[in-house]
Amino acid sequence: MGENLIIFNAKIVTPLGFSSRKGKEMAQLHIIENGTVEVTDGVITYVGENRGEDCDGFHHHFWHYNARGKCLLPGFVDSHTHFVFGGERAEEFSWRLKGESYMSIMERGGGIASTMNATRELNFIKMRSKAEGFLKKMSAMGVTTVEGKSGYGLDRDTELLQLKVMRSLNNDEHKRVDVVSTFLGAHAIPPEYAGRGDEYVDFIIKEMLPAVRENDLAECCDVFCEQGVFSIEQSRRLLTAAKEQGFLLKLHADEIVSLGGAELSAELKALSADHLLHASDVGIRAMADAGVVATLLPLTAFALKEPYARGREMIDAGCAVALATDLNPGSCFSGSIPLTFALACIYMKLSIEEAITALTLNGAAALNRADRIGSIEVGKQGDFVILDSNDYNILPYYIGMNCVNTTVKRGTLYPVA
Amino acid sequence: MGENLIIFNAKIVTPLGFSSRKGKEMAQLHIIENGTVEVTDGVITYVGENRGEDCDGFHHHFWHYNARGKCLLPGFVDSHTHFVFGGERAEEFSWRLKGESYMSIMERGGGIASTMNATRELNFIKMRSKAEGFLKKMSAMGVTTVEGKSGYGLDRDTELLQLKVMRSLNNDEHKRVDVVSTFLGAHAIPPEYAGRGDEYVDFIIKEMLPAVRENDLAECCDVFCEQGVFSIEQSRRLLTAAKEQGFLLKLHADEIVSLGGAELSAELKALSADHLLHASDVGIRAMADAGVVATLLPLTAFALKEPYARGREMIDAGCAVALATDLNPGSCFSGSIPLTFALACIYMKLSIEEAITALTLNGAAALNRADRIGSIEVGKQGDFVILDSNDYNILPYYIGMNCVNTTVKRGTLYPVA
Ligand SMILES: [Zn+2]
Ligand SMILES: [Zn+2]
Repeated sequence: MGENLIIFNAKIVTPLGFSSRKGKEMAQLHIIENGTVEVTDGVITYVGENRGEDCDGFHHHFWHYNARGKCLLPGFVDSHTHFVFGGERAEEFSWRLKGESYMSIMERGGGIASTMNATRELNFIKMRSKAEGFLKKMSAMGVTTVEGKSGYGLDRDTELLQLKVMRSLNNDEHKRVDVVSTFLGAHAIPPEYAGRGDEYVDFIIKEMLPAVRENDLAECCDVFCEQGVFSIEQSRRLLTAAKEQGFLLKLHADEIVSLGGAELSAELKALSADHLLHASDVGIRAMADAGVVATLLPLTAFALKEPYARGREMIDAGCAVALATDLNPGSCFSGSIPLTFALACIYMKLSIEEAITALTLNGAAALNRADRIGSIEVGKQGDFVILDSNDYNILPYYIGMNCVNTTVKRGTLYPVA
Repeated sequence: MGENLIIFNAKIVTPLGFSSRKGKEMAQLHIIENGTVEVTDGVITYVGENRGEDCDGFHHHFWHYNARGKCLLPGFVDSHTHFVFGGERAEEFSWRLKGESYMSIMERGGGIASTMNATRELNFIKMRSKAEGFLKKMSAMGVTTVEGKSGYGLDRDTELLQLKVMRSLNNDEHKRVDVVSTFLGAHAIPPEYAGRGDEYVDFIIKEMLPAVRENDLAECCDVFCEQGVFSIEQSRRLLTAAKEQGFLLKLHADEIVSLGGAELSAELKALSADHLLHASDVGIRAMADAGVVATLLPLTAFALKEPYARGREMIDAGCAVALATDLNPGSCFSGSIPLTFALACIYMKLSIEEAITALTLNGAAALNRADRIGSIEVGKQGDFVILDSNDYNILPYYIGMNCVNTTVKRGTLYPVA
């Protein structure tokens, strides 16, 4: 799995190794004006200045691609999505626009229950086919690795089915996007456990987590830690058990109120805490000290008309900030990488260089993969984005518009129409 | 020019004739659940319920297309763009993000002068080829008619060249997008006339307008009426002369300060006044009374972090509101129709139905074409958008993402990859 490829005459733009986890260096990119990358069996074997022989096409067992000065970046890593689900909620969106309250929408059968019901109704084939459609769109926007969460089954079998769909997509020999699976049984309290959140947490710990682990269906365990959903105490209990069972940890933290999710993520040494619209100063400092990635999801704030997370302050406080789309059928039906760049740079005051690091190396770090992807270095996967421009500033400048010319997955070129 | 086409099993969604100019009826769409449209030689010859024979494919001289329940809308009309230009200003965008002032950017050779220089350097072939690239992207987002403005030459020959590029694109037999040309020589005061705005207006009136008219290169005349650029008095003088010479009128009005551009557009019975972020209540009422289309450009406000125009109030005051992208290399390098929908519905409080009318029939009205395009009626052009969904609510719901399955131009189907 993986091609032999030489890309020459590229403007290579990449973050600088793992240092970005220290935060302060997120803005530093390494640039090679007339660069060549060589990919052997899908893995990078050379990065540097053009070598004359490559431009002449001497390596017989390699595809040769002339980038003609265009920017070559690491493939984008979308480290927070919910892309496996049933149904859509377009009509509910129109109710929200008319000012209907979330409670009233819930009473009409909307909200997460609507997606849960639609997801429970899908079989493997239908669920996989719908999810695969999203992967194609992601690839066209330059995404080469995506995280996907369960959390729309909220029962054992459907949660496992969501994860099996992701595994199947990830095992596809011709995949354009690597899929990293996260178990999010604690996305909401299912109707079967209404008013019995603690019992549902018990059920997850005793029945679901071991089943996920046994089938090796997810690397990470996540929880929707939020007022009225899973409390700090419930989240701590769930994640501690998950850690003991061998999961890496993630949290939906401090999205709606300042509950202390950021602090909890630091206490538990989670990989990442995500959303963080209302993360406290103390929580941000704790995350920076503990090396927890702060994963910001500006599309969701945009869709809900909420204030954006304090990305600028988090970076200044030493956090490693990642950006992701949060693609899901409810709060944020969007996987737009271009709009994520625009929101991060215009509305969250990240520099363009920081946003690039956030969508590559720091996304990789949020998925425990900073040693394999997220930058253009020898030994890492041959996953790249070739832009339509020789100026990476185009990423937020071309607002909401795709400027990806070609996505490269393990050395295979996928031109964007 | 124009195909014979029958689309059946479509969910036909269209505004209701010209009534939308009265404003109050913008929210009313006519819907046919199992509908058929027939296009003969590029013109609509039937709209209504499915006729059995169409589904069986009896009309031998017609292409038959089964929409399988998907929404069929009028093609989108992007009635305000500056898509013909030279150069890009991505790096300048990064300076803006860092907080550099417009004055300081001007001193570094940025701003409109940068685009003017790059445009003056292009020959016809290069200018046309660059512009054509934008038309392809527009078509993929469902646009079937676009307005384009000159205004980056600011000298006679380059202004004419921009318009000739547009005419050439519009005369292309295989065009996917109709191009309506607007002369915007009064986009800025060129360096050759620095400090002599009145003389430049004289020059436009005496030298440029007649040349444009003589060659039949533009239907509309526009002016950037704004503090520090062209005053109300200069704008009135220019537009009055243009009207006498046979041009329809447009204005860039009240974008930065409340100068009275909305009022002037009503006084002169312009086709449209555009931007209107700071239009006064009096100006809005005057526009409603005079039947001037209020063309709102939310992408620009988004890009500049400015407050959005008061779209909701304008509709409630009886204005016909149109939406357009303002695609240009400076303030708003975006032609994103999906993001325009999202901004209009989430941030400007238009209903989804109003936004659809604004991007179809009211865009057509802003180009004096409401009799030919903008709705699905017998006698109008066979220009359609087929969505990827049977629910038009997907348009703003799928935030910033393209949900166009196929664009139809005068009866020719263009599937979107
Ligand atoms: Zn989420
Ligand atoms: Zn404009």
